Amino acid sequence: MVLSTPAREPQQERSRTTRRRLLEASVACIGELGWSGTTVAVVAQRAGVSRGAAQHHFRTREDLVTAAVEYLGEVQLTQLRERVDELPPGESRIEAVVDMLLNLYTGPMFRAALHLWVAASTDDALRAALVPLEARVGREAHRVALELLGVSEDQRGVREMVQATLDLARGLGLANLLSDDSRRRERIIHQWAGVLDSTLPEPGSAEPGDATRKISGAAR
Amino acid sequence: MVLSTPAREPQQERSRTTRRRLLEASVACIGELGWSGTTVAVVAQRAGVSRGAAQHHFRTREDLVTAAVEYLGEVQLTQLRERVDELPPGESRIEAVVDMLLNLYTGPMFRAALHLWVAASTDDALRAALVPLEARVGREAHRVALELLGVSEDQRGVREMVQATLDLARGLGLANLLSDDSRRRERIIHQWAGVLDSTLPEPGSAEPGDATRKISGAAR
Repeated sequence: MVLSTPAREPQQERSRTTRRRLLEASVACIGELGWSGTTVAVVAQRAGVSRGAAQHHFRTREDLVTAAVEYLGEVQLTQLRERVDELPPGESRIEAVVDMLLNLYTGPMFRAALHLWVAASTDDALRAALVPLEARVGREAHRVALELLGVSEDQRGVREMVQATLDLARGLGLANLLSDDSRRRERIIHQWAGVLDSTLPEPGSAEPGDATRKISGAAR
Repeated sequence: MVLSTPAREPQQERSRTTRRRLLEASVACIGELGWSGTTVAVVAQRAGVSRGAAQHHFRTREDLVTAAVEYLGEVQLTQLRERVDELPPGESRIEAVVDMLLNLYTGPMFRAALHLWVAASTDDALRAALVPLEARVGREAHRVALELLGVSEDQRGVREMVQATLDLARGLGLANLLSDDSRRRERIIHQWAGVLDSTLPEPGSAEPGDATRKISGAAR
């Protein structure tokens, strides 16, 4: 068994490539044709993969599209993590991070996910596939956001502020769906960086900042 | 001409009722069948209106659905305005207002609008109808939010904070699409009320609050 591994490598490699091509073709397909036009056969053709090979990887179109959204979500979060080292130090870091986060849902990936989410609201099989995925991808985005902002959830109010940041990002993604909303978004990013700067604790500090205490108590 | 007015009233009244029934049936229809399943004929049947009468009011399904989204958007904002008098005074006012605003997009109206927005991203005729409507409804929601919060846009940072509030509300609407997100939303509402309380100027004051000045300058 151990001896057979080197010989199997190229085939595994080919299989991974096929899978990746199918996933990328799915997202393009959903974005152009919506959920109703996205079948395994259509995606296979677009990816230049035989229908049999496609069905070997993904039995149903629900399997295919959820895998596609998960894959692209992971790619996007990995890219985000890799950019951590490029972040400027000091005061301009927070605005750079907020800029990354609030632009997270303005691309083709979000557009495809939105098609699926809306279709799932009237399609039980798709909904059953997407709900656990939504939770998983959401948790992962939350973790990356905490990392980028350099804060910990143990500190009061941080969890809600980071959640609100990602919900705001999705709202901004929606506002960018039919027309280019980047100018308005830029001003909101600047404003929001200021809010987070004064409400989140200093990166790495164990104690919540003054503003967090103030804000957590303000509406009691 | 003046003498004919009383005689025409009942017919105008009937016409308005027919129109309203068509608009309400449209929203229900979009929510259940999506944009692809929503035709003037299907909506007319659901509303109990003849197809001819429906087409007298709305020539195309684009006309019908944009009128439906606009109508329901107006109804919702009117209801919001009417609730101003019920708002508690003093410190708990802000949390009550934020609760109203951040729950704005969690109902069937937003679900229907979302179906249309997503469909419009791959349908040029629908997009052309929706983009000006999106701008109009968005401006109106912004105006109502300013009114409820008792603040003026002339004050620095207010515009962006109110925009962010409505973008956040839409993001929360999205998060509520496939599963009940109300418990998580409640904590975000509480936190957001604290943020607005410390960043917006006092209702009715001409000068921006300290926190607004602080926050506007923080990320420079």
